[in-house]
Amino acid sequence: MNAEDMILVSIDDHMIEPPDMYKKHVPAKWLDQAPKVVRNDKGVDEWVFQGQKTSTPFGMSATVGWPKEEWGFNPGAFAELRPGCFDVHERVRDMNVNGVLASMCFPTMAGFNARTFTEVADKNLSLVMLQAYNDWHIDEWCAAYPGRFIPLGIVPMWDVDLAVAEVHRLARKGCRSISFLEAPHGRGWPSFLSGHWDPMLKALVDENMVLSLHIGGAWDLVRLAPEAPIDHTVVIPSQLTMLTAQDLLFGPTLRRFPDLRVALSEGGIGWIPFYLDRVDRHYQNQAWIDNSFGEGKLPSDVFREHFLACYITDPSGLKLREEIGIDVIAWECDYPHTDTTWPEAPESAWKEFQAADCADEEIHRITWQNACRFFDWDPFVHTRRQDATVGALRAAATDVDTARMPRAEWRRRNEAAGLGIV
Amino acid sequence: MNAEDMILVSIDDHMIEPPDMYKKHVPAKWLDQAPKVVRNDKGVDEWVFQGQKTSTPFGMSATVGWPKEEWGFNPGAFAELRPGCFDVHERVRDMNVNGVLASMCFPTMAGFNARTFTEVADKNLSLVMLQAYNDWHIDEWCAAYPGRFIPLGIVPMWDVDLAVAEVHRLARKGCRSISFLEAPHGRGWPSFLSGHWDPMLKALVDENMVLSLHIGGAWDLVRLAPEAPIDHTVVIPSQLTMLTAQDLLFGPTLRRFPDLRVALSEGGIGWIPFYLDRVDRHYQNQAWIDNSFGEGKLPSDVFREHFLACYITDPSGLKLREEIGIDVIAWECDYPHTDTTWPEAPESAWKEFQAADCADEEIHRITWQNACRFFDWDPFVHTRRQDATVGALRAAATDVDTARMPRAEWRRRNEAAGLGIV
Repeated sequence: MNAEDMILVSIDDHMIEPPDMYKKHVPAKWLDQAPKVVRNDKGVDEWVFQGQKTSTPFGMSATVGWPKEEWGFNPGAFAELRPGCFDVHERVRDMNVNGVLASMCFPTMAGFNARTFTEVADKNLSLVMLQAYNDWHIDEWCAAYPGRFIPLGIVPMWDVDLAVAEVHRLARKGCRSISFLEAPHGRGWPSFLSGHWDPMLKALVDENMVLSLHIGGAWDLVRLAPEAPIDHTVVIPSQLTMLTAQDLLFGPTLRRFPDLRVALSEGGIGWIPFYLDRVDRHYQNQAWIDNSFGEGKLPSDVFREHFLACYITDPSGLKLREEIGIDVIAWECDYPHTDTTWPEAPESAWKEFQAADCADEEIHRITWQNACRFFDWDPFVHTRRQDATVGALRAAATDVDTARMPRAEWRRRNEAAGLGIV
Repeated sequence: MNAEDMILVSIDDHMIEPPDMYKKHVPAKWLDQAPKVVRNDKGVDEWVFQGQKTSTPFGMSATVGWPKEEWGFNPGAFAELRPGCFDVHERVRDMNVNGVLASMCFPTMAGFNARTFTEVADKNLSLVMLQAYNDWHIDEWCAAYPGRFIPLGIVPMWDVDLAVAEVHRLARKGCRSISFLEAPHGRGWPSFLSGHWDPMLKALVDENMVLSLHIGGAWDLVRLAPEAPIDHTVVIPSQLTMLTAQDLLFGPTLRRFPDLRVALSEGGIGWIPFYLDRVDRHYQNQAWIDNSFGEGKLPSDVFREHFLACYITDPSGLKLREEIGIDVIAWECDYPHTDTTWPEAPESAWKEFQAADCADEEIHRITWQNACRFFDWDPFVHTRRQDATVGALRAAATDVDTARMPRAEWRRRNEAAGLGIV
């Protein structure tokens, strides 16, 4: 097996939702109240909903096409982006040139868990727009290229009954997962341990859907020094995924829902052997604590029954894949964020597999089999296996320029092509 | 080489300071104002200082002699403890039977960084007692058995100038390190990044002493769910050591003090490969951030120049010792806490070394050479090398009963022997 024989299914990428996303998905009577992109007097495109600025389209969220000197938290305009960020046709071309068969895409304007719709006053209007987001994502973005995207919804977390209903609605539309907050109590919501979210978790189990918890959602759990440098915001989030696992594993959640499946999106894998050593020793050592996992099971066994651990690059973690559990690990691409390995994802992944001396079968599990099993998503319904490999996809990718270009140059090109127009 | 050929130097153990510790170390005019142990009406021994209850002698801090069903946060009386907790002669017998040549002991009644003396009103009196603590520790506890203890002091953190003076005073007494808060800003003090502690760090460097940061000191950095179970308090602390490393590595501290040495006491080692992968990738990837480590160095290089990572048991971490850095790792025993491997520390450590396929030379680095180099402490001044091994020490340990016994039984035996009397 060579790098070109790999099949890559990435369960963590991101969309920069395009300005016209609501057009076809909001009933006419509410259309003028849908979120809108407004270009401010500094040339920055801002989403505005219910009178609030809810997000700018990028900053650090869409650096994929830029030289590194132009990275930063500075917002800009859609036209400055590599169009694969917001245009599904360009996205698929970028997936092809990177050898990626399929992708699960997280929201940007909506927030990892629908923050945009949650932190405004009129929740009835929010529900209309949240559902329009989901419909756009499933019926327009994912449906444009059958077999290339794993649908991922969001739910109205301000009302758990509505969240339950939306899970069922999403399931009927073929959605495979929802994105939710890693640590709800970090943002003032009830914690997973509280039981508040149990109806939603039950709905996910009933619908055979996955709870996807992306890093960043636990950021508010940590009290940083006031002088903490910007490096902390990049380094620390994946180090906190452990807190999410701990809340779910030692709280009542996984005991109540033995069939719940949780993806730790972008959480990395290298922390897991240390964490599992710790929880197993704790469990066996602190015999006075009433925290049984039942049936002679160790916490690490229960961890492996419920979690999928997702990584972009993790050379040390791969070396301990047996300690993690070979079925627990799934690769991801993180396009178009700063940590993405695009357009050399196959080379990056392959190099790490070789350094860790992974067998072919292990590589297949990590790059697609584990993800497809976990999300119960068959990659070969629309694509023959021989057409799904890195080599086959790259052979089909023609005229894709992967060079980094300054933002000004992107603006010139995109405006000429009619892309990214607000 | 066999397990009995190992030399064990533990750089993290704990004393339960005995009730009479202040007797010989406080000038007569202040002696009646020294902290005192008072037995309350529930039979619990409590330290009282300046009218405040400052700590009870144990709870989870001294479980070493008890059956696990009797563990818990329930405080008790000195007489219920295994006397090696508070009696240096018994401690050395317990070290011998466990094959441990030397030990660095952290405070209990004083707090890892002198909390007992810091959180009271009369700081002049506090300084007298803090210095008495240090004098007791160095001149009485450590001096009782030359070559068996590495002296570890505490400093008055309420006044950095006083802390500087105490570092110099400790150095003159032959002290090798101070214990300090892992994350000062977690408890409302200025952070390491603030520069506030720089004079103290300079004093440590000038005196060739080590900054020892024990886990638990970063506990207040994390916002737990209100329903978090007791397991969190045991599992999470070592997972947070990364935050301490991050503050020091990416803040100005290590750049300002290229010769500063920091021991991450009980921090574990298994998190380090994942963390170093992350910081190196971050540093190389986020080229727009002005955070140079100079001279073509990576953050992982700087980490290895400054830190000593200390572990009790860490089977996965040992397998990645090359990724951590073989000179960075040091073993510890954690007597008399719940995580200690006493009295089978040699068997526990040896089993993990064998499972990780460690060479003899690697074992020596981890069990004593790294610690002795880092703390600049020569283990063979008072003990010939052939008498320092596990086998030699155990052969000299006679009549040490290592059986766990109920607290009531300890009370009966200790009171009969005149030990643990308040």
